[in-house]
Amino acid sequence: MSDIGLGPELDRALPDAPAPAAGDRVAEREDRILDIIEKTRAKRPKFRDDHITMAHGAGGKATAALIEGLLVPAFASPSLDVLGDAGLVTVDGVGLAMTTDSFVVKPIRFPGGSIGELAVNGTANDIAMAGARPLALTLSLILEEGLPADVLRAEVQAIADAAAVAGVSIIAGDTKVVERGACDQMYICTTGIGQVDARATLAPNCLRPGDRILLSGRIGEHGTAIMLARGEFELGATVESDTRALWPAVDALLGAAGPSLRCLRDATRGGVASVLNELARASSVAMLVRENAVAILPAVMGAAELLGIDPMHVANEGVFVAVVDPDGAAAALAALRTVPGCEDAAEIGEVKTSPTGMVLVETSFGGKRVMDQLVGDPLPRIC
Amino acid sequence: MSDIGLGPELDRALPDAPAPAAGDRVAEREDRILDIIEKTRAKRPKFRDDHITMAHGAGGKATAALIEGLLVPAFASPSLDVLGDAGLVTVDGVGLAMTTDSFVVKPIRFPGGSIGELAVNGTANDIAMAGARPLALTLSLILEEGLPADVLRAEVQAIADAAAVAGVSIIAGDTKVVERGACDQMYICTTGIGQVDARATLAPNCLRPGDRILLSGRIGEHGTAIMLARGEFELGATVESDTRALWPAVDALLGAAGPSLRCLRDATRGGVASVLNELARASSVAMLVRENAVAILPAVMGAAELLGIDPMHVANEGVFVAVVDPDGAAAALAALRTVPGCEDAAEIGEVKTSPTGMVLVETSFGGKRVMDQLVGDPLPRIC
Repeated sequence: MSDIGLGPELDRALPDAPAPAAGDRVAEREDRILDIIEKTRAKRPKFRDDHITMAHGAGGKATAALIEGLLVPAFASPSLDVLGDAGLVTVDGVGLAMTTDSFVVKPIRFPGGSIGELAVNGTANDIAMAGARPLALTLSLILEEGLPADVLRAEVQAIADAAAVAGVSIIAGDTKVVERGACDQMYICTTGIGQVDARATLAPNCLRPGDRILLSGRIGEHGTAIMLARGEFELGATVESDTRALWPAVDALLGAAGPSLRCLRDATRGGVASVLNELARASSVAMLVRENAVAILPAVMGAAELLGIDPMHVANEGVFVAVVDPDGAAAALAALRTVPGCEDAAEIGEVKTSPTGMVLVETSFGGKRVMDQLVGDPLPRIC
Repeated sequence: MSDIGLGPELDRALPDAPAPAAGDRVAEREDRILDIIEKTRAKRPKFRDDHITMAHGAGGKATAALIEGLLVPAFASPSLDVLGDAGLVTVDGVGLAMTTDSFVVKPIRFPGGSIGELAVNGTANDIAMAGARPLALTLSLILEEGLPADVLRAEVQAIADAAAVAGVSIIAGDTKVVERGACDQMYICTTGIGQVDARATLAPNCLRPGDRILLSGRIGEHGTAIMLARGEFELGATVESDTRALWPAVDALLGAAGPSLRCLRDATRGGVASVLNELARASSVAMLVRENAVAILPAVMGAAELLGIDPMHVANEGVFVAVVDPDGAAAALAALRTVPGCEDAAEIGEVKTSPTGMVLVETSFGGKRVMDQLVGDPLPRIC
């Protein structure tokens, strides 16, 4: 039995749902449908595609199938099985978080940032999401033959500046060059290492019903900035990427509510929706999100409507979800709001018991709909 | 004054050398030329190019200019300044080595290996070269839209197999997808972490005159295998890549002659010649290498002659240079030869006082020539 009633929104959310049987009551039908969904969700996704598509890189369902269906089974290790943003390894008693990311954003410069800045913040933030203070990064460049040296210089400077702000050192590097046409100007892979903070007891699979869901800021600005920078849409407003270092926010949260923090996850590819779905599945819980608690710029909303996508699926590069136990939620939120860039932090919802593995949204009109993971890739190469 | 006489080979090695002045004695002219070369070498290379060329990725002079002229100054840190194969970072008293590499080899499968195997061995070996036992890797994939899933599956398996052999765990990963044509099937970035072995006291800038230069095996097989796999040359013989995990060899060396080991460096891009030149410059010493002490397959020699390149410039993926003090050299060599894959290990030369920063080769005919770093990129994308 679900503790979140779906109501009349269900038909719209689940067009393939079975038709009402004779004498069916609404609640019974709802339970039957949710039962089917839960069983489907409980299975580990399988990687069955014949070819790689853009969707496999979008951070949504296809990415999950590739990761959970092919990569995790092949490299089976306790750390990978947890599927956090960073892998954990203990060396001589010291707990380290390690994470890697390739950046293939197009164009490489956009309002509010560039690929170099993104490569530092994106990786340092994944370390921060593991409750670890980012210490050092490695930097691997794949450059296209013919790349103007000044374009490279600008990104090297952006990397150095972002690393200084984030307080990380670049300790090793690599450079490869491929022929003209074999990459788009430059791809960057950064790998980060950090020391797990003693105040942090985080895990993506420890969420409990009653936990509060905090969001650190306004959503959808990075993905929208990239889309606008490509000139594919005419929109009066300028939207800047929200790329920023998140460790200061994590540090504040750990200080104010360390033992209450269940999990942190930055809402990059696939947006807030994909993060919440992954967490709901990992902990076998449900989530209920209040749509009108989620801060969003009108320009971002407008762009999402133009594209026909849910802004909850649009990528962020400086926004994260924090799940906190009920006792620590108020202190955590208050601490978060004092951090620059997190002034719009809000409690957006709550963890529920069922339907297991699902995220439901309470709309502004009081209805409910299923908020699913991203399917396909409406905004490719945003990071 | 040089402690390595160049003799009549000098004119051939240095076609731009000043013409003899009236009354010049051979030794005086030689000294004058070497003085010019030494002064030029002593300066940090500058990155002055307008555009990136394939040579910037080849591991030779242009790569050195890019790294030392642009990247190292921008990211100034004590670890990067040492320019070892891996960065070193100490966390809570635990010494860690960290290194990163992108792999863009073309074709992705070749006799003796594949991009996945290379991505594990290449990075784990850079950790080993820092005198550290490889512990864990992160794996970042950039996949081309349309890549057959079976091609990906095969590389995932190759990665898993190589990781098992090398004794490393894959602890975090990332996957990006770019449009058709925006990469060549797949690029892989692996980053490794290892714990510095207590027996190791290595540094690339601590070489002393009298030190012995050991080479762990036959040279040039990886680069030749890639070239033959591209079908650009017809050669009767098959040459297999030498890709292999080098930690067992390093472990044996540390056990037999730990305190005597000055430096280890795997001879990948740019070959043995580039490694020796980098080390000579880093320690402000000279090196004298005996050409006939270097093991090389006839097929590799033949391919190098066809290409018109020095096999000392051809990439290896399972061969390294070890510089050892004179007292430990015999024990180190004996230990190395017991390790599978290192049966052909040999002492190939000696560290000298001057000409500073230069590597000279004593040819089979008793002459000497300058062995310079690779210039240009005759064999692009070999790793």
